[in-house]
Amino acid sequence: MSERINRLQEALEEPLLVTDQVNIKYLTGFNSDNVALLVEPERVRLFTDFRYAEGARGAVDDIEVVQTQRYVYAGVAPLLSGRVGFEAAVVSYANYEVLRSGPAELVPRSGVVEGLRAVKDESELDAIRKAAEISDDAYERLSRELFIGRTEQELAWRMEQLLHECGGETVLFVAVGSGPNGAFPHADPGDREVKAGELVVVDSGTTVGGYTSDCTRTFATGSLPDELKQAYALCLEAQEAALEGVRAGATGAAVDAIARERIEGSPFKGLFGHGLGHGVGLRIHEAPNLRPESEDVLEPGNVVTVEPGIYMPGKGGIRIEDLVVVTKGDAEVLTHFSKDLISVE
Amino acid sequence: MSERINRLQEALEEPLLVTDQVNIKYLTGFNSDNVALLVEPERVRLFTDFRYAEGARGAVDDIEVVQTQRYVYAGVAPLLSGRVGFEAAVVSYANYEVLRSGPAELVPRSGVVEGLRAVKDESELDAIRKAAEISDDAYERLSRELFIGRTEQELAWRMEQLLHECGGETVLFVAVGSGPNGAFPHADPGDREVKAGELVVVDSGTTVGGYTSDCTRTFATGSLPDELKQAYALCLEAQEAALEGVRAGATGAAVDAIARERIEGSPFKGLFGHGLGHGVGLRIHEAPNLRPESEDVLEPGNVVTVEPGIYMPGKGGIRIEDLVVVTKGDAEVLTHFSKDLISVE
Repeated sequence: MSERINRLQEALEEPLLVTDQVNIKYLTGFNSDNVALLVEPERVRLFTDFRYAEGARGAVDDIEVVQTQRYVYAGVAPLLSGRVGFEAAVVSYANYEVLRSGPAELVPRSGVVEGLRAVKDESELDAIRKAAEISDDAYERLSRELFIGRTEQELAWRMEQLLHECGGETVLFVAVGSGPNGAFPHADPGDREVKAGELVVVDSGTTVGGYTSDCTRTFATGSLPDELKQAYALCLEAQEAALEGVRAGATGAAVDAIARERIEGSPFKGLFGHGLGHGVGLRIHEAPNLRPESEDVLEPGNVVTVEPGIYMPGKGGIRIEDLVVVTKGDAEVLTHFSKDLISVE
Repeated sequence: MSERINRLQEALEEPLLVTDQVNIKYLTGFNSDNVALLVEPERVRLFTDFRYAEGARGAVDDIEVVQTQRYVYAGVAPLLSGRVGFEAAVVSYANYEVLRSGPAELVPRSGVVEGLRAVKDESELDAIRKAAEISDDAYERLSRELFIGRTEQELAWRMEQLLHECGGETVLFVAVGSGPNGAFPHADPGDREVKAGELVVVDSGTTVGGYTSDCTRTFATGSLPDELKQAYALCLEAQEAALEGVRAGATGAAVDAIARERIEGSPFKGLFGHGLGHGVGLRIHEAPNLRPESEDVLEPGNVVTVEPGIYMPGKGGIRIEDLVVVTKGDAEVLTHFSKDLISVE
């Protein structure tokens, strides 16, 4: 049995029905969008339908593969008995009703496998380091391209191509927000053409071996108004201060506060409207969280983003994001592309 | 209020809390991954957090935008009262528990907005037609490229580039299965190099205005064993027969049976292990379904795939997929790239 499943078995109070696709991929190496994994102390069964059963048998050792009907929850429900945990944040109410129709006594559980996933082993860190290097290369190449006159969508597609060319296996997303659009932290790239004298926020993630990078840089298209330059300098100062606070034992709230206090104590008060960062791994957002309400305590092996932003309605936005590994000492920063305010054409 | 919301209001037995992102995009035009929409007979409220509230106010007319805490379910729960439907296939058990902590009497509902979405209006059909044309162009261009010696991943990325170059706004997926890998209907493209004398299954979807195409073609890399040629001919015959059966009033099960009976009555019995097709729209898989257990009855305006396959373990796979609009008469086929067994190099 895999060491990851052994760790899970040790952590369980009762058998756990794992149905999150990424959690199952993490535990077994097998990836499918229609699968369930029942982890008991002495037995592990993987349930999937016709389409995936053959692939599953070839992919997993020491796990029984059980072929079920297409609707896996309905196939699994009658096979459960006694107390069985289920992933309450993953299972829909409708699927819960199906599970409840079986003989088991269901126990809602949350974050069990996600807790294991939050601490990366060396093979996982290597994949993330490699993804971050690819991201660095792509930002470097993007910074030498023409921005002015291209639309956000064109730049986003160009960055996607660069991430692929630099070795990214998949590109999870590229977000480009230019000028006033940059003030919307999560806008999709649109058909707005980038103009001279504004800020362009470029956020992207690419994967290696299923593990993702996450990096944001904000570029200037030539000379900027003083206010935007000041905001950039403050955002960078806040980001670097927060980076220094990332270490084992710190809470997510405490690290968030380092950056937030600097922005709240400035003329840009109120303009940093999201959390400082989040864990990254097989998913682009996972545990632990760095934000005001986070009680997560950082541990060595966590991989988190540090990404304060300043969003000025009608004027523009800034976000500077690094991906880092938590250690007992200083964080290991994985994203190395310059954070100076780079002027592009 | 939008005509879509009016139709929903007419269909409701009680107010409905819509939390599926795509359903909300369909009803309001507003797209966010952290949003809820409460549709009451005389009032519609959209709930979202800081990051999206400003964008939402600009995007929707006649809908009240209410800014909530980041955890939207917790923000909404105390505001509900009386009987309120919720989307049982969308809401996780954990979020259901949060909603249940509020004063409302919750009623699980399924497929309400999805039922509206299944019948496309002309603007939606136009977007899907355009996406299918782009897909046709990309298949045409791919068919003139070198296959042999390239890996599945390289071919998948090339197809993704072609879909972009031909005008696709986003590329949802490209799946390439070569030789024996083609026998896994849902394998990810890997590092296997395509060889001469085998089958290569290429399935892909691209979007226009958020609406997606879906098309699969299977290519031959030179001369094939007779068994694979026979399987291809049979799969195509089954596909074309099923296409003729697609019309308003037919059930999903009946159309599926047309293709399935041909394959089950052949030497390739047992090798068509998935449903015949599915609805396509804002999602790549939506209502109605064409498969043995489907009781869905086709209606004019449905857009569905017709995609029988034959999967021969160790030898190869075939899938031929068209995207069609259901009408009262013959289906309007949207994917026009040749279904002849094309030999590529």
